[in-house]
Parts: sequence; C-alpha cells; structure tokens
Amino acid sequence: MSANPSRTQGLSINLATVREQWNFAEAVDRCLAHGIQAVAPWRDQVMRIGLDEAARIVESNGVRVTGLCRGGMFPAADAERRAAAIADNRRAVDEAAALHADCLVLVVGGLPLGSTDIRAAREMVADGIEALLPYARANGVRLAIEPLHPMYAAERACVNTLEQALDICDLLGDGVGVAIDVYHVWWDPKLEQQIARAGAAGRIFAHHICDWLVPTRDLLLDRGMMGDGVIDLRGIRAAVEAAGYDGPQEVEIFSSFNWWKQPGDVVLSTCIERFNTVC
Amino acid sequence: MSANPSRTQGLSINLATVREQWNFAEAVDRCLAHGIQAVAPWRDQVMRIGLDEAARIVESNGVRVTGLCRGGMFPAADAERRAAAIADNRRAVDEAAALHADCLVLVVGGLPLGSTDIRAAREMVADGIEALLPYARANGVRLAIEPLHPMYAAERACVNTLEQALDICDLLGDGVGVAIDVYHVWWDPKLEQQIARAGAAGRIFAHHICDWLVPTRDLLLDRGMMGDGVIDLRGIRAAVEAAGYDGPQEVEIFSSFNWWKQPGDVVLSTCIERFNTVC
Repeated sequence: MSANPSRTQGLSINLATVREQWNFAEAVDRCLAHGIQAVAPWRDQVMRIGLDEAARIVESNGVRVTGLCRGGMFPAADAERRAAAIADNRRAVDEAAALHADCLVLVVGGLPLGSTDIRAAREMVADGIEALLPYARANGVRLAIEPLHPMYAAERACVNTLEQALDICDLLGDGVGVAIDVYHVWWDPKLEQQIARAGAAGRIFAHHICDWLVPTRDLLLDRGMMGDGVIDLRGIRAAVEAAGYDGPQEVEIFSSFNWWKQPGDVVLSTCIERFNTVC
Repeated sequence: MSANPSRTQGLSINLATVREQWNFAEAVDRCLAHGIQAVAPWRDQVMRIGLDEAARIVESNGVRVTGLCRGGMFPAADAERRAAAIADNRRAVDEAAALHADCLVLVVGGLPLGSTDIRAAREMVADGIEALLPYARANGVRLAIEPLHPMYAAERACVNTLEQALDICDLLGDGVGVAIDVYHVWWDPKLEQQIARAGAAGRIFAHHICDWLVPTRDLLLDRGMMGDGVIDLRGIRAAVEAAGYDGPQEVEIFSSFNWWKQPGDVVLSTCIERFNTVC
C-alpha cells in the first residue's frame, strides 16, 4: 500500500465508493493510510456515526471534505411536502457547515409521484434552491447543483444538463454552482462550452469521476472504475482545469456488480493507480 | 377487435413492437385487420420476406410506411469500415425507396471499439450523412436522424439531442431531418424550443411514441406502452403538430419484459386504445 502523497494529491474519495465495506470512521482512516487527504461522505454515513464525531474526525485529521451528499429532492406533490424538503435541506446545510464541506451537493429530485409535468418539477427545483439559498449563504455553505444523466430525469433529478443547471445558477446569483460528474455529462455535445461557461462564472464547485461501462448492465449501480469505460477523463479534466477549477477530483463509483464486492483497500489502491494513469 | 378507422387514423405501428409475435406479412395483415393503415418495418424484417414481396404487400394494400429502420452506424475505426457503412446505407436507401417509406431512420452509431473520442465519432456521423445524402436525394428518400437517449451515446448513437441533430441538418441542407421519438427526448429541457426549430425548417420526418417506465429495469428492452409511464405524450404531440408535422404517430416499443410476451392482437388493441385515450 502506498502512502506517497505525490500520487494522491488532488484525489478525493466519495465514500459511496466504499459504502459496503466501511463506515465513515473506517473509510477516513483507510483513506488516510493510503495517503488520500480528501473525502466526500453521504449524509446517512455521517448520521450513523453522529455529526459531532464525524466533524471531530475531519478536524483532527485535517481532512478536506470535497462535498456532502446530498441535499435536493425539491419537487413534491403538495406544498407541505415541499416545505418539509426545504427544512431537511436546511439540516443538510448545517451538516455541511459542521464538516467544512466545499459544497452541499444537490440531487434536485425528479417528478412527483404520478406527475408527467417535468416543467413544473423544474420550477419546483428552482423555487426550492431559491428558498434554501439565503440560509446556505448565511452559513457559508455553497450549493452545488449536480446535473444528473437524463436516464434519471423521472426519479432522481430533472436537471439533466450543465447548461440547464447554469441557467438556474444565473437566475439565483451567488452561492450556487455545479458539481460536474463525468458519468452524468460525458455524452453532452455542449460539454466543453458549458464547462467554460461554468468556470467563467466561478461556479465549478466539484468534479466527480468514474467511468461509463460498455455494456452498462444497470441504470444505477453499474458505474465503472476510471479507465474501464469510454469517458474521455483526461479531456474533461483538462477542460475543467482550464476553466479554473483547482480542487480535487472526487471518485464516486456505485458498483454492486464489482467494486462494492472488493476489499476496500483494493478499491482505494485501484483508484490511486487509475487516478495516476488515466485521469 | 376494432376496425373502426376513426380510431386508428394517424396511428402507425413500428413492427419492432410485435417482432417476437409476427413476421412482416403477418404483422401487416394484423395491423390492417385492426384498421391500422401505417407501419414502419426494420430491415431484417423486410429481408426475411424479401424486398420485392414486402413492396408488393405494401403497394397492394395501400399501406403507408412511416419509416424504414434503420440506416446509420457511421463511425468506425478505419476508412474501409466507414466506406462499408456508407455502402450499406445506400442499400438501405434503395429499400426505403422500394417501400415508398416516408424516411430512412438513421441510428447514427456510437464510439468505434476502444475509442473514447466522442467528438471524432460525431464528425464521422456528419461526414457519413453528407456522403450518403446525394444518393438519398437522387432516390427521393428523406434521411431522418433519430437523436437517441444519452444512455445510448457509447454504443448506438452519439447524436443525443434534437438540437445537436438539427445543427447537423443545418450543415447539410435539404433531404435530411429528424425522427422525434418521445422515449429519447422527453427529458430534454430544450425540447419545445427545438421541436419548434425543427418544424420551422420542415425537418420533422417522423414522430415515435411509447413511454418511460418508472422504474426502468433495462436500458434497452424495457420501454412502456403509452400511458404506463411519465412522458407527457399529449404535450409533445401538441408541440410536434404545432410545429407543422401532420403525419402519423408511430408506436415503437421494445419490451422483452412485457409486450413481446403478449399476443400480438392484444398489443395492437392496446396501442389503439392508448392512442385514443392518452396520446
């Protein structure tokens, strides 16, 4: 196992990548042992160990938190549920602040149950972020809209392109930007153009990496390790960096078929190796 | 079984919808028995019965062919394979002409094996269509680029939005347009805008319908019957018709989980019922 920081500088591990192997404390410990100084946890991982303990682990180890996953899920069938979503997002802001996270990642939500009105859902998303934004600003937490792949438009996120996310950002002003996950945006004919636009506006808050496998066997849980698929990782990284983003690249792999079955140390070693060879 | 033409006017059946139940001759016969006067076959279905016999069936029954599926698959790793693809597309043009098809549907192709350069693949697509277009024009066959859902970008089609398809059309001039399949485009934030653009340029050559199921269990073979999913079929139809398209709506459902297991007559009856109630 390597702890050579030159090979892990600029690498962050989204803890979903090892969620089947380790809890929050174990995952941070193993990342540090591999020389990885940045992580991005999910809220359920933080809640299981407790926010205070998670914050203590982060602070005492000088760990950078490249994002907290996730806020969002704004659309709902009635005003009461939409208000509940905002309230939950305020708690997510508190947690992101406690962890000194670079941003709170927003998976904005899809269609309310039974709805076919994606335009209305998108308005609920913009309204929801607008309602949350003053609280996020007051707490020093940046909101990162993550455009999700169009195959998730119905169930997870009705913001599906960088262009669409940036249009919302332009509407709302400071404190809101984007998380650019290669899995969700690699196919976009306007990717380079919109990355440049995001960078020019100072709105790139996170850069997530993994790969798109051919074939992909499952819509949700068959993401690939960098280098095992068809995404032009170097090209996207170059565009993101040329646009001014200088934070870590965060590996986020949901893989019930492969990586969630491997020993966590093998996953981390492979992330480091691929980060140094194909990203 | 109904043969009331008022309930089937403007309805076409893409024969992939009943490909597990019937061959070309049987499918046309059963469509006619249900009062459906328009179909869209796949090339393998035509080849199995023979082009002459397929053309005879079409002509003798006054059937409208709303499209021949499919040409395309332009990107390839070397010039020889790309030339072979053009040659095959010329044969597809011949077949579309023999069937008096409204258009030859182009599924343009994805990344060549081993490539991560989607921009290069997209250039090969534009080059391929440009090479094919004079032959298509000379034979009176319109080429319909079908933007496919971004989840097919790697393997089937690297043209993934209507905007991108129309940019290619603008480049190439007359004789090339788009097939608008709701399954592929329903999620697109710019859908209404780009449908209007397509219509203004006279480029809507086909309108395919089905539905997006929640959840979707398979990337390819889990399309839903109209009304069983979340697509705003009426809204999209209204936009397409407002843009000037007055041809049939063509039902195209790949469904190894459900509809391919049903009796073909049940599938057709259901298509007619849903066409009249939710489309």
